[in-house]
Amino acid sequence: MRIVDLIEKKKKGLKHTREEIEFIIDSLMNGTAADYQISAWLMAVYFNGMDIEETTHLTRAMINSGEVLDLSMISNNIIDKHSTGGVGDKITIILIPILQALGVPIVKLSGRGLGFTGGTIDKLESIPNFNCALPMEEILKQVKEIGAAIASQTAKLAPADGKLYALRDVTATVDSMPLIASSVVSKKIASGANNIILDVKYGSGAFMKTAEEAKQLSELMVQVGKNLGKKITAVVSAMNEPLGRAVGNSVEIIETIEFLKGNTSKDLEEITYKLASLSVLKMDMANSEDEAVQMIKKVVEDGSALEKFRVLIEKQGGNSNIIDDYTLLPNAAQIGTINATESGYVESIDALCIAKASKILGAGRDKKTDDIDYSVGVYLNKKTGDFVQIGDTLATLYVNADNNLSTAEILVKNAFEVKSEQPEYKSLIYAVIE
Amino acid sequence: MRIVDLIEKKKKGLKHTREEIEFIIDSLMNGTAADYQISAWLMAVYFNGMDIEETTHLTRAMINSGEVLDLSMISNNIIDKHSTGGVGDKITIILIPILQALGVPIVKLSGRGLGFTGGTIDKLESIPNFNCALPMEEILKQVKEIGAAIASQTAKLAPADGKLYALRDVTATVDSMPLIASSVVSKKIASGANNIILDVKYGSGAFMKTAEEAKQLSELMVQVGKNLGKKITAVVSAMNEPLGRAVGNSVEIIETIEFLKGNTSKDLEEITYKLASLSVLKMDMANSEDEAVQMIKKVVEDGSALEKFRVLIEKQGGNSNIIDDYTLLPNAAQIGTINATESGYVESIDALCIAKASKILGAGRDKKTDDIDYSVGVYLNKKTGDFVQIGDTLATLYVNADNNLSTAEILVKNAFEVKSEQPEYKSLIYAVIE
Repeated sequence: MRIVDLIEKKKKGLKHTREEIEFIIDSLMNGTAADYQISAWLMAVYFNGMDIEETTHLTRAMINSGEVLDLSMISNNIIDKHSTGGVGDKITIILIPILQALGVPIVKLSGRGLGFTGGTIDKLESIPNFNCALPMEEILKQVKEIGAAIASQTAKLAPADGKLYALRDVTATVDSMPLIASSVVSKKIASGANNIILDVKYGSGAFMKTAEEAKQLSELMVQVGKNLGKKITAVVSAMNEPLGRAVGNSVEIIETIEFLKGNTSKDLEEITYKLASLSVLKMDMANSEDEAVQMIKKVVEDGSALEKFRVLIEKQGGNSNIIDDYTLLPNAAQIGTINATESGYVESIDALCIAKASKILGAGRDKKTDDIDYSVGVYLNKKTGDFVQIGDTLATLYVNADNNLSTAEILVKNAFEVKSEQPEYKSLIYAVIE
Repeated sequence: MRIVDLIEKKKKGLKHTREEIEFIIDSLMNGTAADYQISAWLMAVYFNGMDIEETTHLTRAMINSGEVLDLSMISNNIIDKHSTGGVGDKITIILIPILQALGVPIVKLSGRGLGFTGGTIDKLESIPNFNCALPMEEILKQVKEIGAAIASQTAKLAPADGKLYALRDVTATVDSMPLIASSVVSKKIASGANNIILDVKYGSGAFMKTAEEAKQLSELMVQVGKNLGKKITAVVSAMNEPLGRAVGNSVEIIETIEFLKGNTSKDLEEITYKLASLSVLKMDMANSEDEAVQMIKKVVEDGSALEKFRVLIEKQGGNSNIIDDYTLLPNAAQIGTINATESGYVESIDALCIAKASKILGAGRDKKTDDIDYSVGVYLNKKTGDFVQIGDTLATLYVNADNNLSTAEILVKNAFEVKSEQPEYKSLIYAVIE
């Protein structure tokens, strides 16, 4: 087999065999295929696609390119959750202590975010001394002891995906359904959980722009998971407005704690409760979604989820006093406000504008080696449906450097659309695929 | 400008500006674009194409990536000739002394062949001590003195094409019209001639499989040449049967000399005379094609073209005694024959089979660093239209090593199709584009 012939085959729109896809991934890993050959193949895949069988083969080959975490010694029924990425998406950090409080074991391995804000790991690392660099044995030990662990993904899991993604990122071949699906599913399966819950987002603040695209991707990922013997459930949800009120890193930790203290936003609650109740149902711990939601509400209302978050922070070396004193988190030097210049109801808040503003303030990174400023970000004082009067604060900016501040301000200002009629709350959830 | 955005643009099927294409070639040359980015772009070009304007921009950018030979001090009317490659194609070597004898200046810069047999340079280098590594000033001096020079292309001419071609070769992106056209035309224009004659072949022994594809490519190249101020004429001709009788290196030199001695094949004569008469007409040295052909026939018949070949060989350091004594050329250790097993008329001789057999015998190379065996090859004792009786020699094999000899024999045997009816000679020329 020669890699150039396999590029030619995909270029002609023919279907790869399992052996061919394994050869491509082996050649990528052992260096017998050059990066310029792999990227040409990726572009041919972009144009001619891969069917479910090929995507399954690719996913399997990427899983087998590295270690597979064995969680069977803890339980055969462990939850892992993954989001395709949204603005203000702190749901993982809220979900973990809720599931802990309910006795649903969860292991969450997460990559470091590239984008407008940090990823889940970055957000947690804004808690002083919080340690996400857990070795495998530590993860296993911790899940046994406290029912949850969250760690940064090591390069040992699905390393072929890491290599492929690095190439896709710089060759305009990210937006290919089979490549996205195999990337997400391979990392999740290598992480060892049997029950995988995917939060697949679409809209202005998401990678997928339409609900139908997100649904197609979800169906592909669920089917590939099934082919590889895993249970995957995908929730397709809208990401046109930031989730909740905070967008950044430490500001999102504060919002997480507030949620667990009972102060939540409706949108954040809708998605979090949906994902949590699906997890509870997967564990056969409730007979209906309603029952599951009641269980979830109880552990938030009685403070037990918050206490579990304290346990998690302490277990991973962090300073849990932040729960009671937010000034212990990184604080920005300046605070700015964006005020309403007209009265009415907030009709929409564009997620992409808010995301771009956060990035300009320093909350995100372009390259893995870039620094993140944990303390900066945007807080939405008003959400869609709220009434505002001229002069009311629409949003608060947490700022450390004045660079491009005016651009960030304009972006946040323009993100808000105000109308005379109050809009109805629309459910964010478009479909659940399983 | 970022290379990843330009890949994205071509991926979406949008048209590049001149500045964008220049940026891509500059980035390729100065290393700011990685090879894996260029190859992804090449694959996007394969799928979405480039129009004549884009192809012109790419051709210009590749010309400007290196030196451009200035032939204006010799003449503003110099011929260069290029073939897209065929089996048994020794036409350049026959054409040069004919044009010399007619007083048409020709400068031929040629790449080393990758393929079933060597290229023109390799064939000439089978002449003991023939030197094709001429520096620019030597080429200019020689054309002034004897009216012709043939040299191996230096890496200084259109180096971007060299880099792109090396990538295309290993990423299955060779077969793209705008990439082929810009590659051929950029090298020819950088070589400095004003009048470019292209021999564009199609058929089993050629890169382009159909006449229409070859015609499209020809139209594109002629138009790009026009856009860049050069006169290009393309002859589209069939390459289903080897040209002439010899396929190899030294055997093709022998056939060249025999042609100049008046012993020719009808097919070789048809194409050679067409290209030569087009050259004569371009120089305004004849009023009609008929008149041009008469002039050409005369210099062959009176031996003056053969004498010019002797001058060329001597000027470039070679042993011109080979003209009178073929044993001074590299000789193969063994000679094998393929005999007819049925009587009838040769209906066809498949060029690709003969080419593969020559390659197996050692006449070609896969990589630039591979050695070529000058002495091996195939000689067609019978051509299409000839009558054969059982036991007649169809072809002769010149062999040095027995490796895979039987495979070569089978290929040559199977190349011949014999039928009871005598086929008519069909003109090889499909179209002339100018």
